[in-house]
Amino acid sequence: MAMKKKPVTGMKDILPREMEIRDYAIGLIKETYKTFGFTSVETPAVEHIENLSSNQGGENEKLIFKVMKRGDKLLSAANKMVEGAKSGDANEIGLDVGSLSDSGLRYDLTLPLSRYYSNNANDLPSPFKALQMGNVWRADRPQRGRYRQFMQCDIDILGEPGIIAEIELILATTTLLGKLDFSNFTIRINDRRILKAMAAYSGFAEEDYDTVFIILDKMDKIGLDGVKEELLKEGYAAETVEKYLGLYEKLVGNGEESGAAVSADDKAKISIENIKSIKDTLGDHLDAEVSDNLSTIITSVEGAKAADFGISFDPTLVRGMSYYTGPIFEISMDEYGGSVGGGGRYDEMIGKFTGQATPAVGFSIGFERIVMLLLENNFQVPGAGSRKAYLVEKNMPAEKMQKIMALAKQERDAGTIVNVSIMKKNKKFQKEKMKEEGYTEFVEFFSDREF
Amino acid sequence: MAMKKKPVTGMKDILPREMEIRDYAIGLIKETYKTFGFTSVETPAVEHIENLSSNQGGENEKLIFKVMKRGDKLLSAANKMVEGAKSGDANEIGLDVGSLSDSGLRYDLTLPLSRYYSNNANDLPSPFKALQMGNVWRADRPQRGRYRQFMQCDIDILGEPGIIAEIELILATTTLLGKLDFSNFTIRINDRRILKAMAAYSGFAEEDYDTVFIILDKMDKIGLDGVKEELLKEGYAAETVEKYLGLYEKLVGNGEESGAAVSADDKAKISIENIKSIKDTLGDHLDAEVSDNLSTIITSVEGAKAADFGISFDPTLVRGMSYYTGPIFEISMDEYGGSVGGGGRYDEMIGKFTGQATPAVGFSIGFERIVMLLLENNFQVPGAGSRKAYLVEKNMPAEKMQKIMALAKQERDAGTIVNVSIMKKNKKFQKEKMKEEGYTEFVEFFSDREF
Repeated sequence: MAMKKKPVTGMKDILPREMEIRDYAIGLIKETYKTFGFTSVETPAVEHIENLSSNQGGENEKLIFKVMKRGDKLLSAANKMVEGAKSGDANEIGLDVGSLSDSGLRYDLTLPLSRYYSNNANDLPSPFKALQMGNVWRADRPQRGRYRQFMQCDIDILGEPGIIAEIELILATTTLLGKLDFSNFTIRINDRRILKAMAAYSGFAEEDYDTVFIILDKMDKIGLDGVKEELLKEGYAAETVEKYLGLYEKLVGNGEESGAAVSADDKAKISIENIKSIKDTLGDHLDAEVSDNLSTIITSVEGAKAADFGISFDPTLVRGMSYYTGPIFEISMDEYGGSVGGGGRYDEMIGKFTGQATPAVGFSIGFERIVMLLLENNFQVPGAGSRKAYLVEKNMPAEKMQKIMALAKQERDAGTIVNVSIMKKNKKFQKEKMKEEGYTEFVEFFSDREF
Repeated sequence: MAMKKKPVTGMKDILPREMEIRDYAIGLIKETYKTFGFTSVETPAVEHIENLSSNQGGENEKLIFKVMKRGDKLLSAANKMVEGAKSGDANEIGLDVGSLSDSGLRYDLTLPLSRYYSNNANDLPSPFKALQMGNVWRADRPQRGRYRQFMQCDIDILGEPGIIAEIELILATTTLLGKLDFSNFTIRINDRRILKAMAAYSGFAEEDYDTVFIILDKMDKIGLDGVKEELLKEGYAAETVEKYLGLYEKLVGNGEESGAAVSADDKAKISIENIKSIKDTLGDHLDAEVSDNLSTIITSVEGAKAADFGISFDPTLVRGMSYYTGPIFEISMDEYGGSVGGGGRYDEMIGKFTGQATPAVGFSIGFERIVMLLLENNFQVPGAGSRKAYLVEKNMPAEKMQKIMALAKQERDAGTIVNVSIMKKNKKFQKEKMKEEGYTEFVEFFSDREF
């Protein structure tokens, strides 16, 4: 019976060293978010295939691990599929393999949360502050450091239309990152309505926004000139492109590229100025409340933050998912060279389930990336407790064994980690190995000695 | 776009009240087992279909949620299935729907752990004390209180042939139950080799053991007479059946049914006597080490236990899974009226992967049952922290909002749960609802007042 030893393609076994960090981070996340009034919720890993395929998930919908129907329903669907193929040309009409599946593994926690909220709203407070930690699955091409099963960690506030929700989410997330010893990161913030207003002001047609934003999103990599080139290549009017990039040129030039490091305090100040400048330029294209709210978010976060970071208005921030309707934000961390989390307001998703619009904002941290960074930085879990090994001679009589276990109990009650093991022939080697696991003290028990 | 609000059949959304207890229990489990030297490990939820179908899982193998192949592999398998059906009579030959799946959701944590150990043994200590908490999935017929996704919580010691492993597992598990305020439960313990020796001594043929044990397992429900009747009905020789039941009669009569409540101390004493009696009766049918070890386990656990429970030798304890090779145990809890956990030694499973026998013992607690009991008993999570609500008038100016968030930060840093919410029109109702959530103190902020 040759069984397969490796995990399935693209998924991984997690070893004790990483688990220690994961467990610690999970504990800290729960503890920290709790002080902000978030409560844990959980949805099943398996979701209705109809929900997973409802166009809320963007590209992720192509990556679903589908779960097969079972029993008679599976056989009936398979027979129907075969009959269909028999009456036509299978290669031409294509087999309806999708009909064999009734569910799939969730690819994120946002869609299940919307379903959860619409199913349980009557039993939940309003606004509802939800914390979700759970695995999601995506049948992505496996690559270094990216797995097909990974943990997501989301906080969401449902039922609150005001920016107090954004402020709470950003403060909670940054407080957590601070407790995990991260510093010098930046919260980049923008608003989908500013993005749109800037495009409208410049003369882009609404149906072109998505394409324009995809190009704009490359600003960090290809710069203003690169963005300009790609927009022109796409066939947009030179005048429109000039006007659009003129807006960004003005802002990017404003302090950000002075060469000197910008303090967090200055970042916030420059941001407030930039928002004001955008507001003045865009005029009627932008609702004044949108820009004022963004300023208030920045001011409130900057003034009440519990970690060493900056918050900065970034008019080039796009965020991929089309479901965002208001403020959007992302965590940039220099040591990682990319985003370690992000989120935004999605006021329309829950209405898709309930038929009744429910405002919602979420912030997701890249749990796996954070764990990876902690591992790479050789992060030591604080207060891991002292570790003691009891080495017990083989065939210890019952009464003496009882005594050893009672001793261990006393020490364990006091919080010491006690590992009771049988003494091996090569005791020296045994101790060396246990030292590698962090056992610093050894107590030996022999059947012919008193203890 | 009509999306489905309910979870998929047989799975459930977990509400905040239950999550609070689950999170607390999970934290306590990790903390408690850690002091016994267990380290967390995790395997993917998705396993190779070959491993899941390798006859290690008994009845569970019929309950697998199968995951479909993806992309070209799926199309190729589907085409092959259709071609096969075209060339024969689909209804007669049956469709090979299984060929469309390459993996499935794990139905337990034991099989994945065996794979994990064989894949990572070089990076793991020996013996290896593993703690696993994770969801498993079984496409069981949905019924009250039993779900198709549920959490399992297993501790296993791999690589230790001696009973120190059994003692550690039982002490760790019972210490945890004590911390969760459970008392008056009983650890029933037996050994598969005693079960077999009793059957052999009585004259049953080895190939009949499984059938005999399935009947014996009903002892609590149908009593000695019922078991006798069923064994005779099965066609076993009256003499054999008489001899077999004679063994049990003697033991069951020994103190257990005296009517008076038996103290834990007496339970252990009676158990030691019963084991001695069995040993004397079975003679050469039983290796003396087996019975002596069982006595040592009982003595050691009774003498070092950290909770109010009894441990009792129960020669009728069978445990379903055929992979057990040595001591087996189960937790009986009167308030639940059934088992809330169990385990045993399975020295042969890991060898199926590695080709090299590796001794192993595991103890699994019924996490979902325990959570259910805690919910029913209206369990209060200790040290849940004081909860304060800040009610903030709408449209608070940026500088004042900043001040409010800074105040909240101070209190949160000190461990208070602070929920910052926008003040609603019906403030009285808002407060009442928040009181239900446990918020005891309210602070109100108005834009025209100082704070």
